[in-house]
Amino acid sequence: MQTLGFIGLGIMGGHMACRLLEARLPLVVHTRTRSKASRLLARGARYAATPREVAAQCDMVFICVTDTPDVVSVITGEDGILAAARSGLVVVDHSTISPSATRELADELAVRGAILLDAPVSGGESGAKNGTLSIMVGGDKSAFERVEPLLRKMGATITHCGPSGYGQLTKLVNQILVSVTNLAVCEALAFAKKNNLDLERTIAALSAGAAGSWQLSNLGPKMIEGDFRPGFMVNLQQKDLRLILQAAEESNTSLPTTSLAHQLFTAAQAAGHGKDGTQALFTVIEKLASLH
Amino acid sequence: MQTLGFIGLGIMGGHMACRLLEARLPLVVHTRTRSKASRLLARGARYAATPREVAAQCDMVFICVTDTPDVVSVITGEDGILAAARSGLVVVDHSTISPSATRELADELAVRGAILLDAPVSGGESGAKNGTLSIMVGGDKSAFERVEPLLRKMGATITHCGPSGYGQLTKLVNQILVSVTNLAVCEALAFAKKNNLDLERTIAALSAGAAGSWQLSNLGPKMIEGDFRPGFMVNLQQKDLRLILQAAEESNTSLPTTSLAHQLFTAAQAAGHGKDGTQALFTVIEKLASLH
Repeated sequence: MQTLGFIGLGIMGGHMACRLLEARLPLVVHTRTRSKASRLLARGARYAATPREVAAQCDMVFICVTDTPDVVSVITGEDGILAAARSGLVVVDHSTISPSATRELADELAVRGAILLDAPVSGGESGAKNGTLSIMVGGDKSAFERVEPLLRKMGATITHCGPSGYGQLTKLVNQILVSVTNLAVCEALAFAKKNNLDLERTIAALSAGAAGSWQLSNLGPKMIEGDFRPGFMVNLQQKDLRLILQAAEESNTSLPTTSLAHQLFTAAQAAGHGKDGTQALFTVIEKLASLH
Repeated sequence: MQTLGFIGLGIMGGHMACRLLEARLPLVVHTRTRSKASRLLARGARYAATPREVAAQCDMVFICVTDTPDVVSVITGEDGILAAARSGLVVVDHSTISPSATRELADELAVRGAILLDAPVSGGESGAKNGTLSIMVGGDKSAFERVEPLLRKMGATITHCGPSGYGQLTKLVNQILVSVTNLAVCEALAFAKKNNLDLERTIAALSAGAAGSWQLSNLGPKMIEGDFRPGFMVNLQQKDLRLILQAAEESNTSLPTTSLAHQLFTAAQAAGHGKDGTQALFTVIEKLASLH
């Protein structure tokens, strides 16, 4: 019987690790704030003090932390996974981080015979809770096939996108679409509001046609109501935009609109909306549209 | 029995007038190029030499031409509708034109007791042909109710958006969404292509989630295939972007991203894509992403 490990039990990781319990395999968890593990420990998971100890006991280790330095620390830090890496170990990183850093980490693990799959997710807290995430996977195909049944506990759309880093690149493509389409909705509704249109009626009239998008149907109504509770936080969108622009620079790719989105989200952070949902971008665009 | 008129039998107007025949009311048509009327004349419509002669014979006159000056000419030009305007005449303008010019034309017709409804459409040639257009209507509510059964011959989603000009404003909101979401798809796919992702697989992985849009699902595959046949032409998108930026200026509204879309579509026109579909914007973004 295989043993699974999960490192990082934040909002996303906590739900995803709970879904993994349904595989009915032993689960070892680690997280910086041990209290976040209590729900899982009550359901039979064991706690390990370090990522190294998780890896030493497990055949597959799932990671869900925030940013590139966090994953680097979990893998290559003192008492990191690398210290216990060996042939057959598969590490699945669900964090959204740099594609090039991902490839470097994969190379380091490969020296010890271990395999890194990058497997960032989208779908937010509700997707994590309900096991309906989209999971974009890069790395060795046969390792992907080994973990795929477990990924299916957590996600509904599982795609093998290509070699190491390609899951991260695909997630960044997702984030370009999400952030610029959000901006389209913000400018459209700001123009509509400034011209006294009925905003609910406008969304209803337009969302079924060529103007339609997930962002319009889901964030548009929240923008109108001023409901800025986070589905996806501005600060995390900014982290991902930084990763996009960094990866774009590494590949000499000019992305003028994505860059503009990054700047406008910076204004949203400056206005105190960092921990609000990305629909709070509307307040910036609306103010910009109405300065006097 | 009421008599209907239709002025402007281009790609959109031709199909829409055909759908109107299903109302089984007398139809009088006028178009600058008389040969474009032959299909309708063969099905029982009568031809009138000028917009004035159409209006003189009809209770309701539908217009579908291109730009603001065309509508101004049809209504206020020599032998225009205004010369035959009288109490009870309803003029329905399906063209996408300036909201403020629309209000001025409505005022001029109102002096003669006639009513102008602005009723721009979206849904393209296939929507016009199949009677599934979205029609966004501004102007007098009871006149709207009179023409609504006829609009239902041409469209599937009919919305009364408010007073005169509000149909045009709603259409412009539609065009902000369409053009900026298109730009999101272009930058996302340019980034993906530059980084060697499989583009079909990328679209399949992302289109069901928060990144999803009509533009991604419908124009994305055409961008990949290099199929630039027009659903909606770049030159017409530019006309609409000009109307948006003009209306934004009139209402002191700053739209940085929409303005950027206008500039990038200008590059698409300069590169010879004016008569291609709006998905040809991808060639500009891809070249920009890859200049060396």
